[in-house]
Amino acid sequence: MSKVHNFSAGPCILPKEVFEKSAESILNFNDSGLSLIEISHRSKDFIEVMEEARKLVREILNVPDNYEVLFLQGGASLGFLTAAYNLMGKKKTGGYLITGSWAKKAAKEASFMGNSFNVASSEDKNFNYIPKGYNLGDNIDYFHVTSNNTIFGTQIKKFYNGNIPLACDMSSDIFSREINIKDFDLIYAGAQKNMGPAGTTLYICKKDILGNSSVPIPTMLDLKVHADKDSMFNTPPVFAIYSSMLNLRWLKNIGGLSYIENQNNLKSKLIYDHIDNNSLFEGTANIEDRSSMNVTFSLLEQDLNETFEKMLKDASINGLKGHRSVGGFRASIYNAMPIESVSILVDIMRELENKKG
Amino acid sequence: MSKVHNFSAGPCILPKEVFEKSAESILNFNDSGLSLIEISHRSKDFIEVMEEARKLVREILNVPDNYEVLFLQGGASLGFLTAAYNLMGKKKTGGYLITGSWAKKAAKEASFMGNSFNVASSEDKNFNYIPKGYNLGDNIDYFHVTSNNTIFGTQIKKFYNGNIPLACDMSSDIFSREINIKDFDLIYAGAQKNMGPAGTTLYICKKDILGNSSVPIPTMLDLKVHADKDSMFNTPPVFAIYSSMLNLRWLKNIGGLSYIENQNNLKSKLIYDHIDNNSLFEGTANIEDRSSMNVTFSLLEQDLNETFEKMLKDASINGLKGHRSVGGFRASIYNAMPIESVSILVDIMRELENKKG
Repeated sequence: MSKVHNFSAGPCILPKEVFEKSAESILNFNDSGLSLIEISHRSKDFIEVMEEARKLVREILNVPDNYEVLFLQGGASLGFLTAAYNLMGKKKTGGYLITGSWAKKAAKEASFMGNSFNVASSEDKNFNYIPKGYNLGDNIDYFHVTSNNTIFGTQIKKFYNGNIPLACDMSSDIFSREINIKDFDLIYAGAQKNMGPAGTTLYICKKDILGNSSVPIPTMLDLKVHADKDSMFNTPPVFAIYSSMLNLRWLKNIGGLSYIENQNNLKSKLIYDHIDNNSLFEGTANIEDRSSMNVTFSLLEQDLNETFEKMLKDASINGLKGHRSVGGFRASIYNAMPIESVSILVDIMRELENKKG
Repeated sequence: MSKVHNFSAGPCILPKEVFEKSAESILNFNDSGLSLIEISHRSKDFIEVMEEARKLVREILNVPDNYEVLFLQGGASLGFLTAAYNLMGKKKTGGYLITGSWAKKAAKEASFMGNSFNVASSEDKNFNYIPKGYNLGDNIDYFHVTSNNTIFGTQIKKFYNGNIPLACDMSSDIFSREINIKDFDLIYAGAQKNMGPAGTTLYICKKDILGNSSVPIPTMLDLKVHADKDSMFNTPPVFAIYSSMLNLRWLKNIGGLSYIENQNNLKSKLIYDHIDNNSLFEGTANIEDRSSMNVTFSLLEQDLNETFEKMLKDASINGLKGHRSVGGFRASIYNAMPIESVSILVDIMRELENKKG
């Protein structure tokens, strides 16, 4: 079978060795004669998995000791609610930077125990840029941002660094570049881009915030409950955490964030440079806010769509269709995407221009 | 390697063919050249998995058309909160049957948007029985029960059948016996006993209850939100749903609930009969409330513990230690546990008595 180039926006490509080791462990985990998915989560073998996964997050992201690292469930969508519950203070208001559909959804959840305030929004231009130069005012308990907007192909390049606690939904670019954890009070991220398979959600939070909400928090949404039990308050999603651990091992072994950030920059530069030089295509996002994870672009002449799509299919290029709210195309080039696959995509775009010319 | 007999309380034994097919699909799903865990959850291939899983639940449990079937995240622990949010009515009170630790945790969550009322409790005897003959009164919006108490080894044999909406945490015995879905307004169950690996939670709810709560429900806890999107409101836990689907296929193929209920009765009778006839052991739970899933028992002479534990280990019997709040032993004999493994355990118990004799 010819190699499939998987440009899916998530769940998405992961390293082949993660698939191989995950499959092996489902048949026989640690040579125990038992499957990974039939053992108790309280067994020594699984506790070691959980501890290694948390330790790898600390090592790779350089997480300071005064932060907790938790593997929970529910996706970033439950994270929207969890973030608001845990960060709500005396002002009973969260400030939100509205950079896309996910940011809007995050803001909505603050209304269930407090209020949300839109600090700034780029909805006026269908979220094709990241607002800047906004004023946070002094009526918010925390400031919430979305680091990368998968649908629109924009990414925050410089994070807020002030006195108001910063919360960040980092689902689609965590582990793709170096960040300074100290800039954040709470980071959360669904696994299914650069961390592992769908089914677990990473939380990294400053210990200071735990137990300091101004509102009563339901048990499963209280990060202190999970921190006190080392992410084992209830049965964790064993398989998703195990595969995430394998993927983090891979990331550490290939050189960690400095290596992968450089690779991701090379990959995204390759395709953005081509888009800017190919007369048939245009990028969707504001140039300075372009995401290194999700490259959104469209064909200037709609009647070429069918030809281009057939060329993509013939080359086994998968998952390039843009989100319905933007249209066009989206190349998601997460950590495990090899530069060779990006080159093949660029070659096809070039071939289309040559055909047309 | 000698066969391991896995008596874990959950995550627990699943059929070997589920492990084999899951492992295969992680390497190459549906012969697509892609891994199950790297494909989009919006792809045709995964939508088919989700639909088949939901359809199998309907077929196996004979779910009427006026009920929804959903695969979500968060475990039964998040289900406690979700149940209370969705069922809270004008009386702002849920009634709870307190039959163990999980029931107590369920009741606690009602306090975040309403009140909980303990209809009856068996805590006076460390939950070794199921209360009966209680009065529900007329001040509750719904009645919440736990069908099977994993820790204490008790199980409800006859469910309430009246006018008050019935909610049931069925995590540890769903798919183990025939039930009448029409008795319930809401059933929820963590996957990791008889349904599949940890990481997904099944909800079966009467369509009538959706959108009728007396309190505002946060988005991810609102069953109507998930029902309207066919369990795809956010990225589902792909792997856990896929393996659950495989396990439900297995259950349907071997004969469904009537077959498995008979098998489970044979297995539990084998071990309970032996406990009652072996002078060294005693059962922990009240005889008429004994669980067919979790058999709790203890040694009458504590100084035999070490010998018994060594014999278990030599026979590759795994996961028999009782929960710390009960002590002794617990044999969890879920659907996939073969009667041969139960026989081997009984043989060892008999051997201990013979040695002692």
